Amino acid sequence: MITPYFNTEEGAPAPLRAAVSGRVRFEEVDPLGIVWHGRYASYFEDARVALTDRYGIGYLDLYEKEVVAPVRKLHADYFRSLRFGETFTVEAVLHWTEAPCLNMEFTIQNEAREVTTTGYTVQLMLDADRNLLLLPPPFYRAFLDRWRRGGLA
Amino acid sequence: MITPYFNTEEGAPAPLRAAVSGRVRFEEVDPLGIVWHGRYASYFEDARVALTDRYGIGYLDLYEKEVVAPVRKLHADYFRSLRFGETFTVEAVLHWTEAPCLNMEFTIQNEAREVTTTGYTVQLMLDADRNLLLLPPPFYRAFLDRWRRGGLA
Amino acid sequence: MITPYFNTEEGAPAPLRAAVSGRVRFEEVDPLGIVWHGRYASYFEDARVALTDRYGIGYLDLYEKEVVAPVRKLHADYFRSLRFGETFTVEAVLHWTEAPCLNMEFTIQNEAREVTTTGYTVQLMLDADRNLLLLPPPFYRAFLDRWRRGGLA
Amino acid sequence: MITPYFNTEEGAPAPLRAAVSGRVRFEEVDPLGIVWHGRYASYFEDARVALTDRYGIGYLDLYEKEVVAPVRKLHADYFRSLRFGETFTVEAVLHWTEAPCLNMEFTIQNEAREVTTTGYTVQLMLDADRNLLLLPPPFYRAFLDRWRRGGLA
Repeated sequence: MITPYFNTEEGAPAPLRAAVSGRVRFEEVDPLGIVWHGRYASYFEDARVALTDRYGIGYLDLYEKEVVAPVRKLHADYFRSLRFGETFTVEAVLHWTEAPCLNMEFTIQNEAREVTTTGYTVQLMLDADRNLLLLPPPFYRAFLDRWRRGGLA
Repeated sequence: MITPYFNTEEGAPAPLRAAVSGRVRFEEVDPLGIVWHGRYASYFEDARVALTDRYGIGYLDLYEKEVVAPVRKLHADYFRSLRFGETFTVEAVLHWTEAPCLNMEFTIQNEAREVTTTGYTVQLMLDADRNLLLLPPPFYRAFLDRWRRGGLA
Repeated sequence: MITPYFNTEEGAPAPLRAAVSGRVRFEEVDPLGIVWHGRYASYFEDARVALTDRYGIGYLDLYEKEVVAPVRKLHADYFRSLRFGETFTVEAVLHWTEAPCLNMEFTIQNEAREVTTTGYTVQLMLDADRNLLLLPPPFYRAFLDRWRRGGLA
Repeated sequence: MITPYFNTEEGAPAPLRAAVSGRVRFEEVDPLGIVWHGRYASYFEDARVALTDRYGIGYLDLYEKEVVAPVRKLHADYFRSLRFGETFTVEAVLHWTEAPCLNMEFTIQNEAREVTTTGYTVQLMLDADRNLLLLPPPFYRAFLDRWRRGGLA
């Protein structure tokens, strides 16, 4: 990845990070012997869950607040293949924005620490009636405040 | 299949049937070049949906009646492989029982009309509080009555 | 989609198109009641297979020529949700390029003909030793010639 | 499970065991809020891979010996549901048989150590031409000998 997926706002707090490791499952490998490209959304999801759980903004946390955050944009760049049985790590990086949306970037590395895949997702927040939120809801406002003050490092 | 999966009760009305056709997707094929055995639950599901929709006892019909019917038993026997791009048919056969459960049998045939896979599922009915129903709920009782009187043929 | 995913080269022949229809499967729907975003790669794949099969450049055609064309870039934009049981169409559009790569765009429409999802993939061609092809191999050169001369319309 | 899935032969060596732990992924959960029944084949597979890798009879080991062992029978019994985010363990137990087949039993337990799901698979061995092997191939014969002599405990 030469160009960053997201622009960094001036004075933005450092992004939040979480990583998980996984191992390629038999049924994730296609007839060409490599992980089918569509499965990586699932690997990204594993890291998304790890990151959002760590910071209290996971699916179930949002559910309690009557907010959902569906994915509105998914992108993946494939540089190297993963094969059956390989172990890998997926890192998710949440970039700062004051908008009620989650801009998350992903990097997958193989055992040799080579980058195999990068990508990003954008999630928007909706209320219980599935209306787009134009401002962060209170719990997310509080999360952003803690983040900006460095309380999540 | 030599032995039938379900015993036929004396005097039971003829089973109900529905079939769908499909085509093997690229990502359903494993590194051995054949459909991964775990995907067949999805093929069975396609036929289950076709059958239950036809007779008004689909997921959404049950949902309206505040009943769910989770699968409690799944079985599959694999005789021949399916490969990428092959078309096939899946037939679902619902066997008669007065109990609040769905006993369904499946047969998959390839283009040459050879049986590739057979199997069955058993679904039990639960109410909105996820308690097991010991007797068929009214709407299902009505469905069974129509079936027995030949009104579903 | 406001900006087109691919630039049209001056004098390029019209893109090639193919469409398939599908129906949302039970297991494709997530706990929020909508198709999980990662499944759309599979819907795109269905249309990719239809298009490449129609024009003789499918997985098996390439396999015979000892060429593979893995996906190197995947992108999806989600505008509306699809729900359990909905039928939809996926159209694939192959854009002209003389490079040994497949630039394909996808549009999914629901029953009301509303665009629910758009996206694209870029596939590069590799030879049997998994080396990147810098020029189109002969069979693909012939395909491009037919396309340019209007023989594929 | 009241009846055992496999009969124990008189004088058979103790079964071989391996367990893995997992966590329910978001996309594995269906609209009813529970893991879709068809996903358990994948959980079983994780334990199968762990067990066969541990004892040197995994997919890649067999591949080197030009043997494949496709699943010919799959069975699952569902007792309790798993929900999003739950962690669980899957234990695979390989039962003794001198035939060239793998009789494997699976037990899934939730965090409370309650059995949620049990099941089994039967795999038959085929040679490189996909002919059924009637006798264990030499490498598997050697594996059985070590097992019987207690060298795998």
